[in-house]
Amino acid sequence: MGCDENNCRNMKRNLTYLSQQHAAELDQDLFNDYKFSVDQLMELAGLSVATAVAKVFPASSYNSTLIVCGPGNNGGDGLVAARHMTGFGYSVAVYYPKRTPKPLYENLLCQCEKFGVKIIETLPPINEIKDQYKLVVDALFGFSFKPPVRDVLKPALDALIHSGVPVCSVDIPSGWDVEKGPGTEAALKPELLISLSAPKQCAKPEFIGDAKHYLGGRFLPPGIIQKYNLTLPPYPDQEQVVEL
Amino acid sequence: MGCDENNCRNMKRNLTYLSQQHAAELDQDLFNDYKFSVDQLMELAGLSVATAVAKVFPASSYNSTLIVCGPGNNGGDGLVAARHMTGFGYSVAVYYPKRTPKPLYENLLCQCEKFGVKIIETLPPINEIKDQYKLVVDALFGFSFKPPVRDVLKPALDALIHSGVPVCSVDIPSGWDVEKGPGTEAALKPELLISLSAPKQCAKPEFIGDAKHYLGGRFLPPGIIQKYNLTLPPYPDQEQVVEL
Repeated sequence: MGCDENNCRNMKRNLTYLSQQHAAELDQDLFNDYKFSVDQLMELAGLSVATAVAKVFPASSYNSTLIVCGPGNNGGDGLVAARHMTGFGYSVAVYYPKRTPKPLYENLLCQCEKFGVKIIETLPPINEIKDQYKLVVDALFGFSFKPPVRDVLKPALDALIHSGVPVCSVDIPSGWDVEKGPGTEAALKPELLISLSAPKQCAKPEFIGDAKHYLGGRFLPPGIIQKYNLTLPPYPDQEQVVEL
Repeated sequence: MGCDENNCRNMKRNLTYLSQQHAAELDQDLFNDYKFSVDQLMELAGLSVATAVAKVFPASSYNSTLIVCGPGNNGGDGLVAARHMTGFGYSVAVYYPKRTPKPLYENLLCQCEKFGVKIIETLPPINEIKDQYKLVVDALFGFSFKPPVRDVLKPALDALIHSGVPVCSVDIPSGWDVEKGPGTEAALKPELLISLSAPKQCAKPEFIGDAKHYLGGRFLPPGIIQKYNLTLPPYPDQEQVVEL
């Protein structure tokens, strides 16, 4: 996959990068106008996250993975990705400090456990994370994020930033402004970003630098692409992700 | 994909082929013990159907497809496949003569319509089907099927059998005994069978002959594989289907 350097630069320049408000509206449209259930879209989103991770950091070299899940849909995508990653050959642990008391999330967690995902109740000390895990998936905050970070989630964000383990961020690098990007030098620097449905403004090349960037969540109806005037690359064949 | 001829024959001989009762029990286990929603599994099943169809009958040569959907979960898989196939480049029509009055099915149908699937209310005369469609997907009956075929669905089954257009069957070739296969010479002869989760007994090589055979529905937990003592081939990489 991928593209040659010139084409690639042109493609990225012309891509649509959504504002926070448009991302939220588009999401609501999928549920209200297109009658998708959260279950459906989260399944496809999480599958695409697992797929992109496996393409960039194959299980053969990055077997042991920690997935840090937040309380919202981003965390749910992480739970689905965790399950699919067990099928792709990874040994997966999930840290999910603030759980969402909804049946869907409880069921996703149950599925994780029964697929052999280890649910850890406390994070290892930051300097020991890299002894236990070769890869971290950041499913902490998504496109709804507004600062400040809640106290209960600060240790998780610190671990993502300081562990020294490669980080794959789901949709938004956690802690970043959804539109203005990392903001400070101290922000998280993921090695891989998987944008879901369409990139958000913080995924522009000037913000993500040389991080690998994939698009997943192959479920946008033509009416949405038209309504939001989206310019997105085609997915190859029956792939669930495309490299940007 | 595929395998060399000897390996292939050995692999198929050793595969598990489920009885109708075990197929039903396994399905219930996924919902009761593993807390999957129908939405989740139908999404993955339908995606795998669309993927297998696109691998065997690419949209570039088989653009115009008719999907015949029955009233149960098999029909739901067909509705999901229809939506994904529009994304894979097909022009898709759905014939869905006996609709299930449940929100999930109504929503799947709504999604189909909004993705550009044409919902047809009457079948063309059998001898005209091949003028309009290059491929038919049979999502009429699944592993719960017990004869006789209801009158309202007979014309759909007749069309599948007699249209002269290549047929891709979802899980079970419609009208077949789930365990004993086609039964009569007059039965449906699909060119492609996509078994979901695990093949059923009617998918044995002596029944399906030289039809292409894929396995999809990549969602079986290790506990189910153990409980039913399933021997199934591994899925390659992040693929949603594997050729048997």
